[in-house]
Amino acid sequence: MSDLPASRQPRLDALGHVTGATRYAGDVAWPGMLHARLVTSPYARARIVDIDPSAALATPGVIAVLTASDLGISALDDLRMFEPLAAKETYFAGQPLALVVATSAAAAADGAEAVTLRLDPLDPIVSIDEALDPSRAPARPRQALGTGAASMSVHGDVADAGDADADRRWTSPNVRQRFLRRSGQVEEALRACDIVRTGRFRLQRIYQAALEPQVALAKPEPDGSLLVVTSTQGIHYTHNQLSKMLGLPPDRVRVVGAPLGGAFGSKTLVVEPLAAAAALRLGRPVRLEFTRSEDFLAGNPMGAMEIDCTIGVRDGRLSVLVATVVQEAGAYSEWAAAGLASVVIGGPYRWDAWRVEGVVVETNLAGVGPYRAPGGPAATFARESLIDEICTDSGLDELELRLASLARPGDAMLDGRPWPEIGIEACLRRLGEHEAWRRRASKRGGRGVGVAAGYWPGAKSAAGVICRLESDGCLSILTGVADMSGALSGLASLAADTFGIDRQRVRVVHLDSLAAPATPYSGGSTITYSVGPAVIEAARLARERVLAVAAHELEAAVDDLVVAGDRVEVRGSPNRNLGLGEIAILASDGGRYLPVEGYAVNLAPVIAPLSAAVLAEVEVDPETGVVAVERLVVAQDVGRAIDADLVRAQIHGGALQGLGWALSEEILVDDAGNVLSGSFLDYAIPTATSAPTIETEIVEVPAPHGPMGARGVGEGPVVPTPAAIANAVARAVGRRFFELPMTRERVWRSCSRQ
Amino acid sequence: MSDLPASRQPRLDALGHVTGATRYAGDVAWPGMLHARLVTSPYARARIVDIDPSAALATPGVIAVLTASDLGISALDDLRMFEPLAAKETYFAGQPLALVVATSAAAAADGAEAVTLRLDPLDPIVSIDEALDPSRAPARPRQALGTGAASMSVHGDVADAGDADADRRWTSPNVRQRFLRRSGQVEEALRACDIVRTGRFRLQRIYQAALEPQVALAKPEPDGSLLVVTSTQGIHYTHNQLSKMLGLPPDRVRVVGAPLGGAFGSKTLVVEPLAAAAALRLGRPVRLEFTRSEDFLAGNPMGAMEIDCTIGVRDGRLSVLVATVVQEAGAYSEWAAAGLASVVIGGPYRWDAWRVEGVVVETNLAGVGPYRAPGGPAATFARESLIDEICTDSGLDELELRLASLARPGDAMLDGRPWPEIGIEACLRRLGEHEAWRRRASKRGGRGVGVAAGYWPGAKSAAGVICRLESDGCLSILTGVADMSGALSGLASLAADTFGIDRQRVRVVHLDSLAAPATPYSGGSTITYSVGPAVIEAARLARERVLAVAAHELEAAVDDLVVAGDRVEVRGSPNRNLGLGEIAILASDGGRYLPVEGYAVNLAPVIAPLSAAVLAEVEVDPETGVVAVERLVVAQDVGRAIDADLVRAQIHGGALQGLGWALSEEILVDDAGNVLSGSFLDYAIPTATSAPTIETEIVEVPAPHGPMGARGVGEGPVVPTPAAIANAVARAVGRRFFELPMTRERVWRSCSRQ
Repeated sequence: MSDLPASRQPRLDALGHVTGATRYAGDVAWPGMLHARLVTSPYARARIVDIDPSAALATPGVIAVLTASDLGISALDDLRMFEPLAAKETYFAGQPLALVVATSAAAAADGAEAVTLRLDPLDPIVSIDEALDPSRAPARPRQALGTGAASMSVHGDVADAGDADADRRWTSPNVRQRFLRRSGQVEEALRACDIVRTGRFRLQRIYQAALEPQVALAKPEPDGSLLVVTSTQGIHYTHNQLSKMLGLPPDRVRVVGAPLGGAFGSKTLVVEPLAAAAALRLGRPVRLEFTRSEDFLAGNPMGAMEIDCTIGVRDGRLSVLVATVVQEAGAYSEWAAAGLASVVIGGPYRWDAWRVEGVVVETNLAGVGPYRAPGGPAATFARESLIDEICTDSGLDELELRLASLARPGDAMLDGRPWPEIGIEACLRRLGEHEAWRRRASKRGGRGVGVAAGYWPGAKSAAGVICRLESDGCLSILTGVADMSGALSGLASLAADTFGIDRQRVRVVHLDSLAAPATPYSGGSTITYSVGPAVIEAARLARERVLAVAAHELEAAVDDLVVAGDRVEVRGSPNRNLGLGEIAILASDGGRYLPVEGYAVNLAPVIAPLSAAVLAEVEVDPETGVVAVERLVVAQDVGRAIDADLVRAQIHGGALQGLGWALSEEILVDDAGNVLSGSFLDYAIPTATSAPTIETEIVEVPAPHGPMGARGVGEGPVVPTPAAIANAVARAVGRRFFELPMTRERVWRSCSRQ
Repeated sequence: MSDLPASRQPRLDALGHVTGATRYAGDVAWPGMLHARLVTSPYARARIVDIDPSAALATPGVIAVLTASDLGISALDDLRMFEPLAAKETYFAGQPLALVVATSAAAAADGAEAVTLRLDPLDPIVSIDEALDPSRAPARPRQALGTGAASMSVHGDVADAGDADADRRWTSPNVRQRFLRRSGQVEEALRACDIVRTGRFRLQRIYQAALEPQVALAKPEPDGSLLVVTSTQGIHYTHNQLSKMLGLPPDRVRVVGAPLGGAFGSKTLVVEPLAAAAALRLGRPVRLEFTRSEDFLAGNPMGAMEIDCTIGVRDGRLSVLVATVVQEAGAYSEWAAAGLASVVIGGPYRWDAWRVEGVVVETNLAGVGPYRAPGGPAATFARESLIDEICTDSGLDELELRLASLARPGDAMLDGRPWPEIGIEACLRRLGEHEAWRRRASKRGGRGVGVAAGYWPGAKSAAGVICRLESDGCLSILTGVADMSGALSGLASLAADTFGIDRQRVRVVHLDSLAAPATPYSGGSTITYSVGPAVIEAARLARERVLAVAAHELEAAVDDLVVAGDRVEVRGSPNRNLGLGEIAILASDGGRYLPVEGYAVNLAPVIAPLSAAVLAEVEVDPETGVVAVERLVVAQDVGRAIDADLVRAQIHGGALQGLGWALSEEILVDDAGNVLSGSFLDYAIPTATSAPTIETEIVEVPAPHGPMGARGVGEGPVVPTPAAIANAVARAVGRRFFELPMTRERVWRSCSRQ
C-alpha cells in the first residue's frame, strides 16, 4: 500500500452520480419514440396456440403487437443464447411472447394486459433433479438448438468433455454441456488420506439486482442504419450480435453504451434485440425498459448449483479433490458457469489428485447469464466448507492447513494450466495477524469467526485505445469500455501517471461501437488488466509526440523537458515553456508535427488470477435464525492498487454481494416453474443498514503483464465471502449449513433441531 | 497508365449521389429544430446605431433575434478570421448583423425582413487602388485585429516580410500582410536579358459556387455538450475553433461532417459558429442554411488579384522574374493567397534572379477564403501570358522555351526550398506530341491554340487512420476525412490493394470529431498524399493480424496464406480456409487474438508538387466576343494514378473551373461595395453544355513519400487552364488580354478597337 500514485482523485463519474446529472439509457428520450412492453408467458412450458392482439390493438395509443414472426430476425435458429420472442413454444414462465408498442409507456402496459394468450401447457422441468432424470423429456426440443455458438469467452475457455464413467452417468436429454478435469488416481489417493469428508452443497438461483433494470432504445436512422443506446457491458459484442441477428452490415449498426446503472454480468443482449427489431419493423424509435418484475422474470439470472464434493487430507495437506458441479441453466443454457466452477473449485491449492465434473442441465426456467465470478462463490462455498469441517473434526488449524496446501508457481491448476505467482499466502497471513482471528477462541454464545480462501482466474481480452492531447491541454482516452465499477477512473489514473499530469486533466471520451478501437466486454475482471497496458502505452506515445513538438518549438532536447502542471518546461528554465493546449493546437494545425495522439493495443499472454481470503465474524440468534455479520475482513491480492479508493470500493461491493448470497438472496421457484420471489419485497438484497464493518487488507503481488502490476479486482472479494460466513456460522452454532442462502428460516429450523 | 490496380470501382458515394439517397447536411431535420435567417448589412461600411427586433419578434413563428452581444462567443477579439455577427460596425455589404431564429424557414425569412436597421454609413474601401492609397482610412479599425492567428496552414507556410524598398512602397494602413521572395540582383540580370516583357494582370473576385450552399445544424445535447452537423472540409479544425470560440471543453463539442455538396475551399467555419452559438443561446437545435444570395454575399470568396510582372529571357531561357502580387482580401484578411501566389508565380522554372512581393490589402468587401489552388491560376495567368508574349514577339517556340527553362531537382523554388523531381517535362512533351499542337499553325480565322504550364506545391498534413476487419468480412477505414472529390474512394482502393480484397469489400466509416483519429482538413490536395500512406500501413497491420489468426486456426505458416475473395486460404490447399468474417468474429471474441484492426499515422517529410501543362484550342467570334473553347488537353503529373477514373474526373472538374475563371466568372462590385453579380443569373459558371472536349494525359512521376507514389490531383488542372485559354485567345485574335475573365463584352470591345 505504499507509494500510491499521487493522481488519486474522485471517480470520474462521481459528480454526475451524486448530482443526478448522469444520463442513463433510461433517461434518453427521442421525439416520436415508442414504448414497448412485454407480454410474458404465464407457463414454464407451453405450446403457443394463439396470441390474439385485437383487444390490445384497440387500446388507445397502441401501435403494434409484435410476435416472433414480426421481428425480422433472420438467423433465429442460429441464436443459441435465447429467442428474443418465443416462436412456437414457451420454455419458461416470464418468457417474452409478444411486444406491445405504444405511444406511451402506460398505453403499452394497458395493451400488454389486453393481449389474449391461448397456450397449451406442457409438463415443465423445473429442478436439477428433474433435469437429471433420464426418463424426462427435454426441456426444449433438440431441433431448437443450433451449433454455431454465440457465447462469449470472457470468462475463459470451456470445452465439452467426458469419460466413460461420466457418459454412463449423464444420460438425461437435459444434460447440455459437460466438462471433466482430472489428474492422478483419485480412488487410490483417497485411500491414502488421513481424513476424508464429503458433502452436497447447494446455492440457489440468484439475481444480479442491478438498480437499473434492463433498458435499451433503438432508432432507425434515415440512411437505413440503426442506432442503439443501451445499458450494456459490451458495445462491440452487442454490435456484432445485432448485426448478425438483424442481417444488417456491421457499418449499419451503431451501439452507444450508456452509463451503467449496475450490471454485474446481467447486461448482455437481453433487451437490445427486441428494441432493435421492433424499431426496424416499425420504422420508429422504440424504447424497452424492463419493469423490476420483468427484470426478475425475463432477465438472465445466475443458475442454481448443486455440488457434490469430497476432500481428502494427508499429512496435514490437502491432497485429493473429487467433485461434481451441476448447474441448472434454464431454458437457454449456452452460457453457463459450470465449466468455470469445475476449475475454480480447486481453489488456490495444490492437489495430488483430482476428478471434477462440470455438468450443465437445461430446465424450464429463465436462461442464465453471468453474475460476478460466475460459479466461483458456490464452488468455493463447497470446498472451503469441507476444509473447515475437516479442521473442526481433526483439530487442524484452518489457516495452517490452507497455508500448507497452497499451490506454488508452476503447479497445475485443475485445467492443467500452470499457476503463476499469486498473493494468497500473504492474504491468509494478514488474516492470521488480525485481532479478530487471534481472539476467535474467546467467541461464545452464538458468536463465531470463520475464514475462507479462494481465487478467480481473471480474464484477458484484446484491447485497443487512443490517448490524445486536446486543445485545452487535457488528455482524452478514447475507448468504448463500459464502466462497471470505476474501471475508467483507474484507466484515467494510469494515463495521468504515465503522461505526468493530474488525473483531473484526463477525460474519457466514450465512443460508440463504430468508432471505438477494439473494446473488451466488461466482465470477468478484464478491463483494468487488459485495457490498462494499452492505456499506458497510448499515453506514453502521446507524451512522446507532445515532447517532440515542445522540443522543436522550445529548441530543447526532449530529455531536458518536463511536464509541469499544464505546461511543458525546459528543466531548470521554467520560463522556457509551452502550454499543453498550445502544443495540441500546433500539432493539429497543418503538416508540421505528428498528431499528439497515441494508439496502442494489448493482449496479455496469460491471465492473472485474483485471490482473496476473507474472515467473517458473526453472531447467530438461534431463537430467530438471524445471522448478524458483524465484521468482514477481506484480504485481497490486487497485484497493484492503481487507485486504493476504487479498489476498496470494489471490495466492499463484492463482500456485500457475497453476504447477500450467503444469507438472503434466492430466486424461489414453485413446482410449476413460477418465480415466487420476483420483487424486492420477496428477494432480499443487503442494504446499507445491513452492511457490517468491512475491512480491506490490500496485498500487492504484481502481475507480470498487468498495468503497473495490477490484477483485476471485481470478482475477487465475492468468491470466498459466502464460504467465510458459512464457516463462521458453523463455528457459532456448531452446525454446518450445506445450502445457501442461510435464511432465517433455515437457520432457525436447523437450530431448532438441535 | 500501365498496371493500374485491378480494384478500380465506381466511387463509393456514386450510388447515393445518383439515386438521391445521400443525406447532405441540409437534409438533416431534428424535431423541434429552429431555422435561422441572416439579417445582412446593406452598406459596405457603417456604424451600427440600432438593430430593432420588435417587428421581427412580432412575426408569427419568430423565436428570437440575436445580435453579436447575444452569441456568447467569448473570444471575439481573438477571432481574426471573421466576426460571426458584426458588433459595432459593419465592414462589408452582406455582413451578417443579426440572426432571426424561427420555427420555420419561412417565418425566419419574414422575420429577417422585419428587422429594422439603423446604420450610419461610412466611406468604404472597395478596390485595390483605394486600399493602396496611403491617404485613405483603414477599412477596419486596427483595434479589431488580434494577434493570435486562427488561420490554417494547409496551403503552406506564409510569413510577413519586406525590405526597405517595400517598406517605402506599402504605406497604406490597409496593407495587412506582405511577403518577399528574392534572389540575385534583378536589375543587373534584367539588363543582361535579350528580351524583357512587362504587364499588369488582373483576376477578379470569384465565387466557389458549390451547388450546396453553406449549411450547418447545431443541437445542444441534454448533457450540456453540443452536436454540430455541417458541410465542412475539416471536422477537427472546426471542432477546435468552435471549442475555443464557445468556451466549451473539447470533449463537449462533437462535429459530424456531412457529405459535401461541393466546397472547393469555401466550407470553412462560415456558418458553424452562428448555428452553434444560437443553439447554445436558445437551448434548441438550430439550422442555418445560406440562401444562394447569402452564399454569394456572406461567404468567403476568392479575392481579386492584381499582378505586375516582368520577365526577362536570356539565351533562349527564362532568366529573370520580377513581380508584385496584390491581393484584395476583403474585410477579414487573415486568410489570403498572396503569400502562396508569390511563390507559385515562379512556375516550374529555374530563374537566375527574382524579386517577388506578395501584398494583402484589406477592403470593405466580404473576407476571402481559399478556392482551389488559391492564387495559382492568377499567378500562372500573369507569368504564362508574358512567356507567350515573349514567344510571339521573339519567334521562340512556346514549348521549347518552357522546356529549356524547367527547374531541375535541387534548384530553388522562389521560397528557397529545393525542387524535388516533378513530371512537368513529360507533360509538356505530351502536349507537343498532340495533333492539335502539331496542326496549330494551320489555325486561321479567329481560331488559335495556346499552351501554359504550371504547378501547385501540394500540401502535407499529419493523419491517423484505423483499418478494421468487420464481422461480415469487409474492411472498414475509420476516418473523419471530408470527401471533397472522391478522395475516400481512392483511399478505399489503397486499402483494398494492400489487404488483397475487392474494393467493394472496403467501406469508409465516417467518424465524428471526437472519435476520429487525426484528420487533416480537406484542401490543398492534401488528403490522398497525407492520409494514403496511413491507410496503406493500417491496412497492412490489419492484414498481418488477420493472417495471424488464420495461421493459428488453420495451423499453417503465415507465409503460406493468401487472401482469396472473402476468405483466407492455405496456398495450394484451398479447402483449408477461413472466412474473413469468421476471422473477425474469432478475433473479437475474447482474449485469444489481437484485434484485427490497424492504426497508423503519417506525416510526409516533404510536400510533393503537382504540375500540369494545358493546351487550349479556341475559336473567337470578334463580332460577338464569344470565345468558344473547343478543346482542352490537360497533361498532368499525378505521381501515380491510384484510380484513373477518379483522376480524370478531378482533372475534368478543375479544367472546367479554370475555363469559368478564364471566360465568365467574376463577382462584380459597384463603387459603394455592393455585389452586382450575386446570383447564378449574373454570375456565369460553365455548365455541361458549355464544356469543351477535355482530354487528359496522365503522367506518372512517383512522389517518393506519396501512397504508391501518388501526388495530390485536385489543384493541378486549374492552375494553367486560364492561362492556356488566354494564350489561345491571343493567338486567335492577335491581341492579348491582361484581365480575366475574358467576357464577351471585353473581347468584343477589344476586337472592336482593332
